[in-house]
Amino acid sequence: MTFQAEFENRRVLITGALGFIGSNLARRLVELGAQVLLIDSLIPEYGGNLFNIAGLEDRVRLNISDVRDAHSMRYLVQGQDYLFNLAGQTSHMDSMQDPDTDLEINCRAQLSILEACRKYNPQIKVVFASTRQLYGKPDYLPVDEKHLRRPVDVNGINKMAGEWYHILYNNVYGLRACSLRLTNTYGPRMRVKDARQTFLGVWLRLLVEGKPFEVWEGHQLRDFTYVDDAVEAFLLAAMSEASNGEIFNLGGEPVVSLKELADLMIEVNGGGEYVTRSYPADRKRIDIGDFYADYTYIRRTLGWEPKVHLREGVRRAIEFYRANLPHYV
Amino acid sequence: MTFQAEFENRRVLITGALGFIGSNLARRLVELGAQVLLIDSLIPEYGGNLFNIAGLEDRVRLNISDVRDAHSMRYLVQGQDYLFNLAGQTSHMDSMQDPDTDLEINCRAQLSILEACRKYNPQIKVVFASTRQLYGKPDYLPVDEKHLRRPVDVNGINKMAGEWYHILYNNVYGLRACSLRLTNTYGPRMRVKDARQTFLGVWLRLLVEGKPFEVWEGHQLRDFTYVDDAVEAFLLAAMSEASNGEIFNLGGEPVVSLKELADLMIEVNGGGEYVTRSYPADRKRIDIGDFYADYTYIRRTLGWEPKVHLREGVRRAIEFYRANLPHYV
Repeated sequence: MTFQAEFENRRVLITGALGFIGSNLARRLVELGAQVLLIDSLIPEYGGNLFNIAGLEDRVRLNISDVRDAHSMRYLVQGQDYLFNLAGQTSHMDSMQDPDTDLEINCRAQLSILEACRKYNPQIKVVFASTRQLYGKPDYLPVDEKHLRRPVDVNGINKMAGEWYHILYNNVYGLRACSLRLTNTYGPRMRVKDARQTFLGVWLRLLVEGKPFEVWEGHQLRDFTYVDDAVEAFLLAAMSEASNGEIFNLGGEPVVSLKELADLMIEVNGGGEYVTRSYPADRKRIDIGDFYADYTYIRRTLGWEPKVHLREGVRRAIEFYRANLPHYV
Repeated sequence: MTFQAEFENRRVLITGALGFIGSNLARRLVELGAQVLLIDSLIPEYGGNLFNIAGLEDRVRLNISDVRDAHSMRYLVQGQDYLFNLAGQTSHMDSMQDPDTDLEINCRAQLSILEACRKYNPQIKVVFASTRQLYGKPDYLPVDEKHLRRPVDVNGINKMAGEWYHILYNNVYGLRACSLRLTNTYGPRMRVKDARQTFLGVWLRLLVEGKPFEVWEGHQLRDFTYVDDAVEAFLLAAMSEASNGEIFNLGGEPVVSLKELADLMIEVNGGGEYVTRSYPADRKRIDIGDFYADYTYIRRTLGWEPKVHLREGVRRAIEFYRANLPHYV
């Protein structure tokens, strides 16, 4: 079945929809002819940005509300065919400084969304945005879904619970739900104002601004998923019954060191510079070393694989921020 | 070092202290000469029971408060040498019917206790009471600490987060903390009014009342820890620096089927009867099959092993409830 046949005229709800991945997903779904309802709280420190849906305003419905607001969520999930559940607090630092808020968003709100679906829309299919942070420091590489979860910050712990609520509601209540563990996702519309989503956002901004960016150490290996590839994974997971109750890693090619990535970005940009520094002392204890994911399981189960090579993805991201940076700083 | 040398005149805080394990731990610590401060909320549906500290009233301080009350906890942790953190919602059913309350107690309150310790008493040593429920249905037996965690109810998910907050605060902030994953703990002072702690409580009560109890299926294998053995594990974990940041399974000998346990109880009791029935449909989906724990790691690291054989433990438990049942129903 094609994406178009699956999603045309279907009712789709996206939480965190003005954020990076949510807004790219919304764009794709609108192209496919879906009726898309966007939810976002527009908390300034988070990823929501109205510019992310520029040009799309007349083709979607936008509802500003917070996933912690159980009453509005209870109403909004009703009648929807799909829920792409992307709202979350994503910052390591914020979760350590204010663990309670992280808990409210990443745990309690998830429970109340699932309760609302179970009671008022048990036919809905839910795809949850999880994260590689659940794994913590890898025991082996590449990391598959059987790897132990040992998160290194409050955010990772709460996301671990939030993900598992989804699997539980699938298993116990038959509410169809699955989870994607995203690795470093990048591309147009990512937050570049600060490192709350990933260091890569800050690198991109400084590069486009012609300023040097910082590489911490630089030998650590990472994988990166271009946002269009991540969006495809969400669509494939939503349309498959084989995904119910399952958890899938995403990944990307090639695996590179941070220094290699920095060099690649400067090459693609046609210039730029960075400084290498040692890992800050307050972050060293949560340094996870190398990480890259094994995405065999989603390839085998859903036929997903990354299509946009890192070099091409970086090129598109730089191009986007060259044209649009003022909307993101 | 002996327990007495370690705990005499030391200041010890126990949360959930009027409950089953908390009160047995309190009794042992009082015998050892510790200055014990008991915290309990006395929520009727939970395990707290004033009779659990009968005879001990003049030798402990009792503070009725709820671990969700961050202000009282902030005050109460100050000046303590040890925190035995046992307060929790333990009922599977309650966690499914009211996931929010379970989240408040098993997640949020744990975070706020740890924040209070970090800010106002960073020297304290914390031992957290976790549970085998984190594992869900085993992939292999016996289950060691490297087994994946796949909890089958909201309670298990929230306990998973609560445990990991402790490990995180140890790793990131140097707040010494560790966790014990308890299997079926039994003995005097357990809740026997209903199955909120374990089925074994209900079996004990009905046996002592001379009524038949129910065995679901009966072939499932389980292990059981007598409460005095569990108490020793808490003391060993508290006094060791090798436990910091670590998670340990407890276990028990022998591993028996539920039917073997039922037969043993009737034999020790000198009479009684049970009926075998199939697993209730609404529980079948969360049936974990056989479970027993590998406790090699705590034996090797802390020198703990279970000393009270199941037969002897059952004998003591029956004796206790023959004498004291009215205080528990």
